[in-house]
Amino acid sequence: MQNFEFHNPVKVVFGKGSIAELAELVPRGVPVLMTYGGGSIKRNGVYDEVKAALRGRAPREFGGIEPNPRYETLMRAVALARKERVKFLLAVGGGSVLDGTKFIAAAVPFKGRDPWDILAADAAVAAAVPLGCVLTLPATGSEMNGGAVISRESSREKLAFTSPLVYPRFSILDPATTFSLPKRQVTNGIVDAFVHVMEQYATYDVDAPLQDRQAEALLVTLMEEGPRTLKHPRDYEARANLVWCATQALNDLIGCGVPQDWATHLIGHELTALYGIDHAQSLAVVLPALLRHQRRRKRTKLLRYARRVMRLTGPAGDALILKAIAGTERFFRAVGMRTRLSEYGIPAEAAEVVAARLDRRGVKLGEHEDLGPKEVAEILRMCV
Amino acid sequence: MQNFEFHNPVKVVFGKGSIAELAELVPRGVPVLMTYGGGSIKRNGVYDEVKAALRGRAPREFGGIEPNPRYETLMRAVALARKERVKFLLAVGGGSVLDGTKFIAAAVPFKGRDPWDILAADAAVAAAVPLGCVLTLPATGSEMNGGAVISRESSREKLAFTSPLVYPRFSILDPATTFSLPKRQVTNGIVDAFVHVMEQYATYDVDAPLQDRQAEALLVTLMEEGPRTLKHPRDYEARANLVWCATQALNDLIGCGVPQDWATHLIGHELTALYGIDHAQSLAVVLPALLRHQRRRKRTKLLRYARRVMRLTGPAGDALILKAIAGTERFFRAVGMRTRLSEYGIPAEAAEVVAARLDRRGVKLGEHEDLGPKEVAEILRMCV
Repeated sequence: MQNFEFHNPVKVVFGKGSIAELAELVPRGVPVLMTYGGGSIKRNGVYDEVKAALRGRAPREFGGIEPNPRYETLMRAVALARKERVKFLLAVGGGSVLDGTKFIAAAVPFKGRDPWDILAADAAVAAAVPLGCVLTLPATGSEMNGGAVISRESSREKLAFTSPLVYPRFSILDPATTFSLPKRQVTNGIVDAFVHVMEQYATYDVDAPLQDRQAEALLVTLMEEGPRTLKHPRDYEARANLVWCATQALNDLIGCGVPQDWATHLIGHELTALYGIDHAQSLAVVLPALLRHQRRRKRTKLLRYARRVMRLTGPAGDALILKAIAGTERFFRAVGMRTRLSEYGIPAEAAEVVAARLDRRGVKLGEHEDLGPKEVAEILRMCV
Repeated sequence: MQNFEFHNPVKVVFGKGSIAELAELVPRGVPVLMTYGGGSIKRNGVYDEVKAALRGRAPREFGGIEPNPRYETLMRAVALARKERVKFLLAVGGGSVLDGTKFIAAAVPFKGRDPWDILAADAAVAAAVPLGCVLTLPATGSEMNGGAVISRESSREKLAFTSPLVYPRFSILDPATTFSLPKRQVTNGIVDAFVHVMEQYATYDVDAPLQDRQAEALLVTLMEEGPRTLKHPRDYEARANLVWCATQALNDLIGCGVPQDWATHLIGHELTALYGIDHAQSLAVVLPALLRHQRRRKRTKLLRYARRVMRLTGPAGDALILKAIAGTERFFRAVGMRTRLSEYGIPAEAAEVVAARLDRRGVKLGEHEDLGPKEVAEILRMCV
């Protein structure tokens, strides 16, 4: 096991009716800005529940944060928060609203030239407005971590930052608020959570059997509860299990003391930035190809994955690994996700375009930090 | 899944050489009291490592906290901490030192009649001195939770309290500091951690498959890494895996949204208080009998345990469950633990004595809160 630090201070309030807890959780006597997305919370009753819990207080509001939240939109919220001297941010929505709100939190007190530097130039986050959230979409895990991914319209970039200062003070997770999600978003959430686990699991072995089994627990449960909740979208138990899996998939825990990959995400972000496909769609396309391309270096873990997650038997070898990867792709398709670039209308040249963009940024990907433009292009050519 | 709150703010610093981090973690410019046990930290070099990390600062010291830390001893530390206006407590040792230090932390600012009331009369913990720890014994999980168990010599009582105010600010876990532990203490730690998981797992089914699998991940890994670290006590990897399992076994996570038992612990505490056996010894005696006694009500979970943890096959039924319980007892014995009252020289009358004591305190045990003196006596008679 590698040395590690683990410090996750988020208070999770989970279950039916938990939005009412906002009355106690949101600080009193300070200006609060409530952020949300395209308005689904007004249609599904969550907005009213939040307002009822905060009765007698008058939070400012900023709506319209889009999927893949945009710097341009968020900077308008930053201006509003500065003007109103906001001291607490309450994000109500999915991972995009929450990620956007984390950026607002860090940008409001930012003293540098332009808060975009937090994403593009590793500028330090020295302070942040405290935030909390009501999560309405199980997927990104943002509700229990200190990371966010932000897009910039003008440059078609999609970049991430992390800071211990943007962990939510609390996250309210009421699975019933997610019943009204369209099927596509539930599918996206299942795949997103699954790939989060794979990024921390399918690397190389460092003799960390507990972390391996904790990751496998998530993968197996997602393969079981994902289809169950798609089939019975208003079954509270199935949805609750999906929500808790999605949170646990990216709350730092299974990454303790083990190497992490994240190449699938970084390649996927480019596909989303350039071609506009959903985040989870990009992951479903890239992961199988990446695993096939890197299967010799990931051999020990992929054999473990084949046996324990895909429940395959047979001699240890390349055939077993390829069968496990095919099973992964089949699982994605079974929950309604397409897994090929061509199915999204993305041209084969994407391979070279993405490779060149990553090369310009000078990043090397993967748990060995050695996948360059050549390997990225090879992987993407396998996704056609 | 049941509704739950999860909020664990402990910062874990894990790995080789991590004691050096104390230099940054312990607050500067305030009086610090360092607490420890019988002096093993002076023999194994941990004391010197801590002092080196705190060079230039002069923490006060309080040594001599015993296993099953005693109220009488701890109140001397409380007097010292009050006199010296201590503002931070640093516990260096195992679960007993840490539990004792949590009590000191809560007792120093206690405004009531007698801090014992925190344990015996559910007196509220309104404030606590902040604390951190260097853990040298994987077992109790105290390094990542807000609970403590304290004994009182004069009344032969052993009682627990929990408070969000006594979570350690940080816990340093360097597996190498545990290499010099006597075999008996390593065995105790393995069994203690295993039973912590069982208390949260072997209850009744509430459709929480992720929590089930997270618990099974711990149980299987303990059954694998426990014997491995006993055989190779200076193998860093094996010991690191045991340490991380012990922490995860009682850090609130696997108990999220599921019923919990704790009857084994509460009966075991009486055995320790009355007859002086080690905490883990008491658990190894009580758990198999409790599972046998309650096996019909725990049927679903025990069948799952039989298949997934004990890896048994065969038709679902009482025979399979009894085989799994026998396997549990065999595992305890294989790591060097005796599992019968008679093997510890405890008389058969203990059954009635313990039952009467719990009855006087008016507690009902188990996940259904309905095990009274009759059932406790029956369970203990099965332990002879």
